[in-house]
Amino acid sequence: MAKILCVLYDDPVEGYPSSYPLDEIPRIERYHDGQLTPTPAQIDFQPGQLLGSVSGELGLRPFLEAAGHELIVTSEKDGPDSVFARELPGADVVISQPFWPAYLTSERIAGAPKLKLALTAGIGSDHVDLQAAMEHGLTVAEVTYSNSISVAEHVVMMILALVRNYIPSYQWVVKGGWNIADCVERSYDLEGMQVGSVAAGRIGSAVLRRLQPFEVGLHYTDRHRLPKEVESELGVTFHEDVESMVSVCDVVTINAPLHPETENMFNAELLAKMKRGSYIVNTARGKICDRDAIARACESGQLAGYAGDVWFPQPPPADHPWRSMPHHGMTPHISGTSLSAQARYAAGTREILECWLDGRPIRDEYLIVDGGKLAGAGAHSYSPGDATGGSAEAERFKQR
Amino acid sequence: MAKILCVLYDDPVEGYPSSYPLDEIPRIERYHDGQLTPTPAQIDFQPGQLLGSVSGELGLRPFLEAAGHELIVTSEKDGPDSVFARELPGADVVISQPFWPAYLTSERIAGAPKLKLALTAGIGSDHVDLQAAMEHGLTVAEVTYSNSISVAEHVVMMILALVRNYIPSYQWVVKGGWNIADCVERSYDLEGMQVGSVAAGRIGSAVLRRLQPFEVGLHYTDRHRLPKEVESELGVTFHEDVESMVSVCDVVTINAPLHPETENMFNAELLAKMKRGSYIVNTARGKICDRDAIARACESGQLAGYAGDVWFPQPPPADHPWRSMPHHGMTPHISGTSLSAQARYAAGTREILECWLDGRPIRDEYLIVDGGKLAGAGAHSYSPGDATGGSAEAERFKQR
Repeated sequence: MAKILCVLYDDPVEGYPSSYPLDEIPRIERYHDGQLTPTPAQIDFQPGQLLGSVSGELGLRPFLEAAGHELIVTSEKDGPDSVFARELPGADVVISQPFWPAYLTSERIAGAPKLKLALTAGIGSDHVDLQAAMEHGLTVAEVTYSNSISVAEHVVMMILALVRNYIPSYQWVVKGGWNIADCVERSYDLEGMQVGSVAAGRIGSAVLRRLQPFEVGLHYTDRHRLPKEVESELGVTFHEDVESMVSVCDVVTINAPLHPETENMFNAELLAKMKRGSYIVNTARGKICDRDAIARACESGQLAGYAGDVWFPQPPPADHPWRSMPHHGMTPHISGTSLSAQARYAAGTREILECWLDGRPIRDEYLIVDGGKLAGAGAHSYSPGDATGGSAEAERFKQR
Repeated sequence: MAKILCVLYDDPVEGYPSSYPLDEIPRIERYHDGQLTPTPAQIDFQPGQLLGSVSGELGLRPFLEAAGHELIVTSEKDGPDSVFARELPGADVVISQPFWPAYLTSERIAGAPKLKLALTAGIGSDHVDLQAAMEHGLTVAEVTYSNSISVAEHVVMMILALVRNYIPSYQWVVKGGWNIADCVERSYDLEGMQVGSVAAGRIGSAVLRRLQPFEVGLHYTDRHRLPKEVESELGVTFHEDVESMVSVCDVVTINAPLHPETENMFNAELLAKMKRGSYIVNTARGKICDRDAIARACESGQLAGYAGDVWFPQPPPADHPWRSMPHHGMTPHISGTSLSAQARYAAGTREILECWLDGRPIRDEYLIVDGGKLAGAGAHSYSPGDATGGSAEAERFKQR
């Protein structure tokens, strides 16, 4: 019988709503590329419920306990005395999420002799030291595509909100004012602007597709060039490198995984190559941007605004400069954990566990590391080598 | 020589920025349907400047004074002692804006014997009593299309922000928290939802076009049905009446002019026919919705959220319930007065004045009332008869 250790974010501090706002959520059968949404044998939850926090348990308990497995769910993930650290040595499976990452460092992997499967309930496994996972023969899997569209919607929303100066204008309403000129002295239309995406994978290309009718100029850079027909369908211009792209863009959105080539990509040097008054929306990973360089650029006006939902570390301390710098539109790491996304990644987690427990193959598109090497989705998105050191660095940060 | 009385919103109370965020704004030559953007002989401003407030003067002063005309610019528009009321009897032209409407009631029109042209720097002339304008032989003109896309972008932004619960999530960042579950217990994806537009004119159809790649179901109702090929290109379902449309929609956006058929359309009775947990975004006119019925629906959960930027009256009092009701994402009336829109409607105002002062015809698409009847754009959007009584009612409200 397997021991499954599941790290999820905390329950609402303001309590659960007496009923969810919507009675049901739309049912999505296939993603844009035709891939089927998760196909577990069964689910034990109502889509639209809060599943991603501790008491939601991803809807897994009835299924796992009926089959005699042990499920431990906790939000305590940091430091050597956390439930996560204490239970890890006996765990066969770790489930974690990018929104509340349980960092699986090489030290922790070395100290978890029974661990066979690191499962990301969501997308993005950079909280796992992939090199160590390969060396220890772990399988690393994630629910590919489950929340890509959720994130793409967040990106488009944030681009519009920054360019149009939404949140400061909302605040005038709440304060009782009608200060049109104060609202609009930073408000523009997106129409006609040049918008570039760093990477055009599932999220990046979904962002570009959603922006196409806004009559903007579209650009991207990626180490994998899109097929000519997709470039032409989207009307998007390819750039060989990020410097060339950002120099012509008014808005840049970052949709790349975190790996050695993207870590710290948006540093002071690259920001200086952008047009004065550009906007950045980063829902990819916090470490792709230099924290202090971004804050300084927002203060100087080199950036007209910065938004996104990814930070380093997560959660960020209360004095993280991105919480208070001018003209930001940040959220906590939520774009990929809407109630709609939760229903899909909970179903995908169930599907992966059903396969793994039955000894059936996990869908290739869900695999990041398998059989000691980068596999499936992982080979596309990640580079071999200790991805970024991010997992260990975050853990050290937490232990200060 | 003509006397031109121009009512604009107040300058920023927080002062002008030392420099505008962007060095230049995109140049748009033609609108989506091929119509040329404004074509004045000349402009005396830099696109991207703040032109819509009092000191901006729509960039008109050098031009008008060089030709010997008198220009009076004020934000004082309410009550019998306002600059607007005092100067109106001698004015040949009144320029006003929907964001800060100088209500031209039938009484005021009767008291302005020299008035020949009521010019809206923007779109939407319901602050003018159109019936009285017809009877007194006024020309009413507006800068058709100048800010339609600005408004359409605001609508898409607000739909995403409501459905994804953006602003409350942003507020957790600013408060220093990381309350993922509190953020997402009201956060959904737009994907798969049914979205309906009340009217599919320039703004409504631009909204539908922008929403198409979000893979939602699209619906509309309008007294003018779109051509079959446009319906098919947009993949949008026509509904004969608003009741039929709202009963199947998760999100409703209102993009109709205010006239007797739309006034108070979203009252308690219609709201009760919507799905529980629907969202409304209204950037059309405040009086299309029943103020108190909307607030009650947000409180009861019948509406999951309400956003928009139009109110009644404008400015709304500090205790207007839409400022404080739950789950709202309101802004002041700004969607059509982004700096990008200002550059276009200031140029269009200049174009209309150049024509009128030279005795040349004003573009047909700019005309609402001309020669004693509804004309051009007006015949499409408005009904004969005293449109809504809104102008007189707002004025009475102000004088309480």
